[in-house]
Order: sequence, then structure tokens, then C-alpha cells
Amino acid sequence: MTADGGADYVPPEERIAVFDNDGTLWVEQPYYTQLAFALDRIRALAPEHPEWATTQPFKAVLENDLEALKASGIEGVVELVMASHAGMTTDEFEAIVEDWIAAAEHPRFELPYTELVYQPMLELLNYLQANGFETYIVSGGGIEFMRPWAEQAYGIPPEEVIGSSITTEFELRDGAPGLVRQPEIDFIDDKAGKPVGIHRFIGRRPIAAFGNSDGDLQMLQWTTAGAGRRLGLIVHHDDAEREYAYDRDSHVGHLDQALDQAEAWGWVVVSMKSDWNTVFQGGAE
Amino acid sequence: MTADGGADYVPPEERIAVFDNDGTLWVEQPYYTQLAFALDRIRALAPEHPEWATTQPFKAVLENDLEALKASGIEGVVELVMASHAGMTTDEFEAIVEDWIAAAEHPRFELPYTELVYQPMLELLNYLQANGFETYIVSGGGIEFMRPWAEQAYGIPPEEVIGSSITTEFELRDGAPGLVRQPEIDFIDDKAGKPVGIHRFIGRRPIAAFGNSDGDLQMLQWTTAGAGRRLGLIVHHDDAEREYAYDRDSHVGHLDQALDQAEAWGWVVVSMKSDWNTVFQGGAE
Repeated sequence: MTADGGADYVPPEERIAVFDNDGTLWVEQPYYTQLAFALDRIRALAPEHPEWATTQPFKAVLENDLEALKASGIEGVVELVMASHAGMTTDEFEAIVEDWIAAAEHPRFELPYTELVYQPMLELLNYLQANGFETYIVSGGGIEFMRPWAEQAYGIPPEEVIGSSITTEFELRDGAPGLVRQPEIDFIDDKAGKPVGIHRFIGRRPIAAFGNSDGDLQMLQWTTAGAGRRLGLIVHHDDAEREYAYDRDSHVGHLDQALDQAEAWGWVVVSMKSDWNTVFQGGAE
Repeated sequence: MTADGGADYVPPEERIAVFDNDGTLWVEQPYYTQLAFALDRIRALAPEHPEWATTQPFKAVLENDLEALKASGIEGVVELVMASHAGMTTDEFEAIVEDWIAAAEHPRFELPYTELVYQPMLELLNYLQANGFETYIVSGGGIEFMRPWAEQAYGIPPEEVIGSSITTEFELRDGAPGLVRQPEIDFIDDKAGKPVGIHRFIGRRPIAAFGNSDGDLQMLQWTTAGAGRRLGLIVHHDDAEREYAYDRDSHVGHLDQALDQAEAWGWVVVSMKSDWNTVFQGGAE
């Protein structure tokens, strides 16, 4: 694709590759990192909210009551996300995320989450970047949760991070402008939302897409249905020893339809167990 | 800002400049170019919609009845935009815009709109790009209306165009994926929406902002309130002979509050009449 004059040549401005984040670039088990952030944030804010001691789903978080937390369902999770992610300016939220990501550790590997990024995917990112590709993250995770550390962890600048978002509002406070995060969902960048997010932010169709779950199905379809040579790839988590083994029965990183459709669409399915010599950049395994 | 080691040095990744489009980079009088597109599109589609001959605001368009069109108000304009901008795939809409922009001419200058871009602003864009700046369009106009021609006209690629949008939905038709444009407003990238759009798409605060109307007020505030050296600039249309003269009393390109606040915020106000040797890139004047 980079050989000028070759049959498959693609000019640099059209060399666009999109990467899912959770489970594709870094670990997503036993639960999404952003959920760990939200729960820690609820615990940190609890002294200012005495009512949480008796109100679900907050009570469940403060008492580490996983059953009650699950029972609160998707509405409970949304409530936790809004309480932990909204109500501050974008600058304040960025500082909160930076402080948390620098201090937090993964429960099993006992390392910072930013060391639990996959070494083979870092090599792939570097290889594509060295060959003139723009490498975008296209994640169901929060756009403002990823931007503060994506550049250091992956070499991906803020303007190449696409994700889910809540709304923000411009305010002048004593003459100083700020953007205040509102407790209202703006965009869910998952499943059929991924091609929508890609088109909105990039305005071109990517030529390569990398994912690991059904949340990436439509992004893989949209990318690989374009004209010319295309690459779709699924990271299959089948390595319980060095990382985790999960697919059709897992809620986190659920992989079912995309696995069934991989052969018909010509997507590469990578076995973490068989194909990867090293799993983590930090060498955790 | 580009002298490494200097007091005002800004690393390349933070060199972000934002430009309004209508009235800042190209002509916006006697009406926004995108409105001309919408009206032409309604006329082109009329044979498929016999009911438009008797229904406002369509009747007004087909009969060139400006009074009736004005009377239909903002609701009428939204109806015209939805009828002309929605209902097709993003690929189809791109082709429609490309065909129109190649053929349409400005009513006074009788030249393609893409030749009615301002020569001094092109020089500014080139100067900033040559000095490592990312130059974004941040416009109240439609993001998908601008992307098809912005790269050729301004050297600004699709991923650096930010604008207003309608929603799109991902669809599989006979196994082929497409994004279909829906008759529903997604985001208005104007006034207080401009800093919101900037933060959503770029994730960093620009260090230079260029506008010409009150629609750019909050973008100018947000940009120039940041730390370090900043540049805010307003193009003042005061040249009725070579272009147009308008500000506080004009509906299109209304400039009132931003002009009043320019001195206090330290924004440069450029007189088109006195400061520009050449107005149009095409040399139309």
C-alpha cells in the first residue's frame, strides 16, 4: 500500500486504521478499567454524599456488594457514571483521570493499567505509524477518560481518540470560560455507533480495523466493505494463563457474531495463546 | 512560538488554530452558500414531490417568493435543510455536494464559490501550516457540506473540518454496509456550541482563533483565555465595493457583541477595506 505506483498503492492521507481499545489495546478483564475508575471515584466522593450510605447503587459500591451492584442493572451503572464523570469542568476531569491512572493498579497483575497494554498491538501501531498511517482509537469507552493517557501509552494524540461522551456546556464564570460536563449521554460509540463515530470524526472510511468483540462488528464490516485492499482483525482472548480466556459466554468483551462472521468477511482471527510470544508491554505474564 | 527554547515556544502537537468558514474563509453574502445549495436541491427534487407546489416553505422556493420564505422562519429553513440534506447515504450526499459545488456560481460575482475564498486568509492558512500548525475549520455550516471541497480549497483534510451535523444510522442493505443521513439535528456548531465542538473533536484548546461574527464569540473567548500567548482575530466586512459591508444590522454574519468585546479581550480587528490588498483568491474584485 505504500509502494508508489503499485497496484495497491494508497496515498498517505487515506491510510487510516481504527483500533478498539478495551480488550484490543489493553486488558479489559475482570472488568473495564473505566468501571474501576468510576467505583474508586464514588468511594472518594462518598464523604461529601452521606445519602449514598443508604441509596443504591451507591450503597452497593461502598459495601463492595457485587450482587446488589449487578441487580442495579444498566440504569445503576449509568447513575454511577454520571455521579463520577459529570459536574466538573473538562480541565478538572482531565486532572482527576491523570491522578487516578498514575496510582491505580490492576487487581490480578498488580501493575498500572497503562503497563497492561499488549506488546504485539504496540508493535502494530508503531509499524502503521511509521508507514504514514493515522491510527485512531474507536472505543465504547469514554473519550475524555482515554485522552489524558493515550498519547503516552500508544502514541495516539487526543484528536485521534474517538469514544462515547456525555454533553458539555460552555460557561463564563466571572469572565473565565469553561466547559462543564453534564449528566447526560451525548453519544454511545459502540456497535452500530462505531461507523457513525468514525464518519463524524474522520470523514473517511478506514482501510484497516482491529477489534476483539461484537462491539466491533459494524466497524469491521464498514471498514472491510470498502473498495481496494482492506484488513479486518479480531484479537481472540484464549490465554487464561498469561491473560484471560473468554468469548461467547462473557459479558465483558462478548465475542460471538463477529467470530461467526470472520471467515465470510475475510477477517484475521488472532489467537493470543498461539500467535503472541509476549502479551503485555510491561512483561507482566 | 516555533523557536525551540524561546519563552513562547509551543510544541508542534499543541499548535492548533481554528477558523470559522462563512465570512472568514469565503464569502457569505447575500446568503450562506449552503442555503443556495439547499434551494437548488429543492428545485432539483421538485419533480419527485408534486405536493411541494402547494406546500410551504417548498412553494416559496419553487416560486422564488422571498417574502413567503422569510415568513416560514427558522422552522421553514430546518424543513428545507432536512428535505435537501437527509434520506441518502453519506457517499451519495458527498457526490451531490461535489457535483453542485463544481457547477454553482455566486449571484453577484458569477464565479464558483470555491474561487470566492479570501486570498489573505489562504496566505494565513499556508503560513500556519508551514509552521507546523493543525488548521481546523470550526463552522456553523454542515460538516458534510464542507468536507468534499475543503481539502482542495483550503488544504484542510476532512478530519480537520468541524461543523453542524444531522444524525446518521448504520444499515446493512443486502449485506452491504452504509450510513444513512437522518432528518434529525445532531449538533449545532455555532456560538456556545463552537467550544463544545472544538473540545469534542480536538480535545485540546487552540492557541489561535479566526472569525467574523457573533457566532465566533465563544470560540474566541475559549481560545484566548488559555495560558501563554494567544491570538484572536475578527475579519470586519467593511468593503462594499470589493465585497460587502455589514456588521451589527446584518442577519447573515451578524457582528455586534464580538466587536464590542474585541478590545477588552485583545482581539485584532481586520478591516477588509484598509488591510487587504487583495480580497478574493480568484481576483474577482
